[in-house]
Amino acid sequence: MSAPSPDDELVFLPLGGSGEIGMNLNAYGYGPPDERKWIIVDIGVTFGREEATPGIEIILPDPSYLEDERDNILAIVLTHAHEDHIGALGWLWPRLKAPVYATPFTAALVREKLRETGLLDKVPLTEIPLKGQLTLGPFEIDFVTLTHSIPEPNGLAIRTPLGLIWHTGDWKIDPDPLIGETTDEAKVRAMAEEGVLAMVCDSTNVFVEGTAGSEADVRKKLTEVILGCTGKVAVTAFASNVARVETALHAARAAGRTPCLVGRSMHRIYAAAKSVGLLQDAPEVIDEEDASDLPDEKILFLCTGSQGEPRAALSRIARGEHRNVTLRQGDTVIFSSRVIPGNEAAIHALYEEFVRRGVSLITADDHHIHVSGHPARDELKQMYQWARPRIAIPVHGEMRHIREHVKLAQSLQVPETIAPNNGDMIRLAPGLAALIDEVPAGRLYVDGNVIIETDDEAIRDRKRLAAEGAINIALAVSAKNAVVAGPNVTVRGLTMPDDEDLELALEELEGAAHGAFAKLSHGERDDDDAIEGALVRAVRKSAERLWRKRPLVDVTVLRL
Amino acid sequence: MSAPSPDDELVFLPLGGSGEIGMNLNAYGYGPPDERKWIIVDIGVTFGREEATPGIEIILPDPSYLEDERDNILAIVLTHAHEDHIGALGWLWPRLKAPVYATPFTAALVREKLRETGLLDKVPLTEIPLKGQLTLGPFEIDFVTLTHSIPEPNGLAIRTPLGLIWHTGDWKIDPDPLIGETTDEAKVRAMAEEGVLAMVCDSTNVFVEGTAGSEADVRKKLTEVILGCTGKVAVTAFASNVARVETALHAARAAGRTPCLVGRSMHRIYAAAKSVGLLQDAPEVIDEEDASDLPDEKILFLCTGSQGEPRAALSRIARGEHRNVTLRQGDTVIFSSRVIPGNEAAIHALYEEFVRRGVSLITADDHHIHVSGHPARDELKQMYQWARPRIAIPVHGEMRHIREHVKLAQSLQVPETIAPNNGDMIRLAPGLAALIDEVPAGRLYVDGNVIIETDDEAIRDRKRLAAEGAINIALAVSAKNAVVAGPNVTVRGLTMPDDEDLELALEELEGAAHGAFAKLSHGERDDDDAIEGALVRAVRKSAERLWRKRPLVDVTVLRL
Repeated sequence: MSAPSPDDELVFLPLGGSGEIGMNLNAYGYGPPDERKWIIVDIGVTFGREEATPGIEIILPDPSYLEDERDNILAIVLTHAHEDHIGALGWLWPRLKAPVYATPFTAALVREKLRETGLLDKVPLTEIPLKGQLTLGPFEIDFVTLTHSIPEPNGLAIRTPLGLIWHTGDWKIDPDPLIGETTDEAKVRAMAEEGVLAMVCDSTNVFVEGTAGSEADVRKKLTEVILGCTGKVAVTAFASNVARVETALHAARAAGRTPCLVGRSMHRIYAAAKSVGLLQDAPEVIDEEDASDLPDEKILFLCTGSQGEPRAALSRIARGEHRNVTLRQGDTVIFSSRVIPGNEAAIHALYEEFVRRGVSLITADDHHIHVSGHPARDELKQMYQWARPRIAIPVHGEMRHIREHVKLAQSLQVPETIAPNNGDMIRLAPGLAALIDEVPAGRLYVDGNVIIETDDEAIRDRKRLAAEGAINIALAVSAKNAVVAGPNVTVRGLTMPDDEDLELALEELEGAAHGAFAKLSHGERDDDDAIEGALVRAVRKSAERLWRKRPLVDVTVLRL
Repeated sequence: MSAPSPDDELVFLPLGGSGEIGMNLNAYGYGPPDERKWIIVDIGVTFGREEATPGIEIILPDPSYLEDERDNILAIVLTHAHEDHIGALGWLWPRLKAPVYATPFTAALVREKLRETGLLDKVPLTEIPLKGQLTLGPFEIDFVTLTHSIPEPNGLAIRTPLGLIWHTGDWKIDPDPLIGETTDEAKVRAMAEEGVLAMVCDSTNVFVEGTAGSEADVRKKLTEVILGCTGKVAVTAFASNVARVETALHAARAAGRTPCLVGRSMHRIYAAAKSVGLLQDAPEVIDEEDASDLPDEKILFLCTGSQGEPRAALSRIARGEHRNVTLRQGDTVIFSSRVIPGNEAAIHALYEEFVRRGVSLITADDHHIHVSGHPARDELKQMYQWARPRIAIPVHGEMRHIREHVKLAQSLQVPETIAPNNGDMIRLAPGLAALIDEVPAGRLYVDGNVIIETDDEAIRDRKRLAAEGAINIALAVSAKNAVVAGPNVTVRGLTMPDDEDLELALEELEGAAHGAFAKLSHGERDDDDAIEGALVRAVRKSAERLWRKRPLVDVTVLRL
């Protein structure tokens, strides 16, 4: 590796995931300030909740700073295939247009994603083998095998002329991950010998004492629990946790049950896993349509929907709306999953639906049938002892996680710590780490097929429409500025206890519109904006009195 | 008490709170099936969450069955003053028009509520002293002192010619409740001697092992925690927990801090408590406006908003939008409260706001500074041992709480158990308890100043508007069925990446409307519904292609 030039700087820029859970987007820049070359590490989404962001399912990090730097982006490197690390690729790649690098399982899922959005032929996607290497301008990157809750979780050892960055991605220390190798401790220790300038590290579970626990323990317990069930059994888990999926399949075999995958992403990930040689030893799965041929005690459904997503398989089963799967008294649903913060109400409602049907519930509160994929405090301490970084940069967490992680690193005598916010440009070298710039950062909404700002007027209007409703007024005005038809008033989202009351309300609104027009001067009647303003004010006032609400009022003046 | 007639029946009818948390409404009926007399016990609300039910703050139980029985309702008896037990009175009393009975503190809060809604002069409200009695036709009611998280929690011993019902209301067994007497164990034991036909009992914490814990322990710990704080301190707790409010006031005094109430319901409950002789020994509070005169370490704010309610004091402080209270680095917010299920996301967001300001957070996860007001399993067992009912009827819980409570009662050898749903009419006597009818039950929304059904078209439209947006089309049509102005298209809640794209989209929609009109036959052009239908179909199709969304499309045809 060449020696650094005197003007060279090494910078870190998080644009997502620092100050929030999900939606990770990190960038590293190297070179003189006006000639930086960039690599992007991960490009994820977060999900809108139907209630909080109606009409918005996918939320993206705002990449506008990097968009302007597009010609200097050497690569998008993906650590692993979770949606909060790869999900934005299909949406944002056209703005960034950099080559993409990922290990085989991640690449398989990325390819499928790109196929869906018609980008497969456009995006240069290179597969890197596990423990592979990659040189991108001033960056030399080693993929380091870790353990997490998905196959092929990689940390990145990023060497630059100004020092080595250890970017952990998402990880835990699972002594028996079931799929894939254990954490490459030797590699991390070797990095420490070489000297780690900065460790950019997962903060998700910094408030959790102890260790995350092993997938192997879950396999033991889940098998035991399933053996104890009578009737039909449905297990729900994240499809991307292929070790867990394999556990359910093995447990089914042990219990003499035939496994059946239910839900699109189960099939998707199952196929991706098979394509890279995983799940070879697992029993064959049957189609949903054939499941009803089996006696209740011979079937195990493996379902998507552990977070109470209303359209996922499990919610449809709970509502009795699933075409091929019905559960009732005597059957059991096993949640081999956790409750992601924000989903409590939806999951609660799902529980209730099952309880009302007499279906038994087993959750991770009852038995040790779930472990997290993120490091608890003892694992974090272990990693700091292995890597011995000069600078600790916690990412992948809300601000309270990141600040707590900073405290932890300080307690471990890491010399420098930084709690980054999205958009903070941090110089890692030369000199002490420092915030040198703040660039635009935030969220974008995918709204139908359009990407919009979160404060777009359309979103503000939709929130207002949801709470307050809408009133539309149309009137036709002659060349002599006389009203020749209307004002005609219609409402949406506003009602009255009975039709007669509603009729009277509409009459009152029309009267208000009429009255407002009548009060306009001749000059004002020439001006559509003046007409509109006067009618909106008058009708809104009537509406507030009638409903104690503030609807959006729109006026259309048709000129003859 | 007179002997029962041969046709007499005693029935229990829950219309709220059985199968859901909150919104309690229970009724007891006595007499021959066609001449039943009714008493209503509690009439509460639940709260809409801004996100889940936009525009809906208050949700009521549907009282329509009792509305039809209005002439036979002898009374509305209130057990205590929590909103989920009294909140619907102002909304539903005009439909029920029965006299209301409550103990003094409850009556004070009810009066204020009725004053606000202009019903104070209309509702006959009778104060019953603590441990008082009340005879209403065939019902003889004793108010039994319990402990809970509000002053004056009463159970009701309801005697009828067919047996004694022990209606617990909300309760726990607090050995030192700080305000009010301890649980009247002797009275409950005496009921058991007399024979309890049915116990209708709180299920909220049936999944919690052990006991709820005492307000006295919270007083000790909270005082200690506040003594350890530097800078400003803000404590948040439910205002209605007057013992907790008193604890905060005493702790302020112990720490040499002057207490200051922040938030409307703090002031409201403080006044109600004073009006019935509570808080006599507490230090005086100062006005918000005067708080800034004191040094940081001499002030304690007692705030509403522990659940992250966006308009409550604490959220406004967190956002830096509160007129009189600012918190920053070095200050502390203490949550002497729990996280009510469904509020996790809002509370989380509140934590983040404070952490970003450098404000320290202390919650019940860190210290024993909150106890529940509801009985945990050991308390439930104790109550069953005291009361020894023949029938256990768990209420006040979701279905999973109620079913678990049934299991608990069965394990305690209660001979009969019933898991009621809202709307189940259950005969308690004569004979074995049995479901004899199912009557309409459900929720009503308070929408502005109108009470509407939850499936009202207005609500469906608003949800659709929120997710999909709206398109409005207006056109003026001559007597000869020619379009003389328009079609004019406007959109709400739909956007495009830039103005030019939006302009083009609107042109396309207008073109679609034009085209659809052009294809109509002369006869169809005579018919506004036909015009409307054709334009809606054409424009919706264009919109789906443009946005991949399904907006509401409205057409106004103005006839000249």
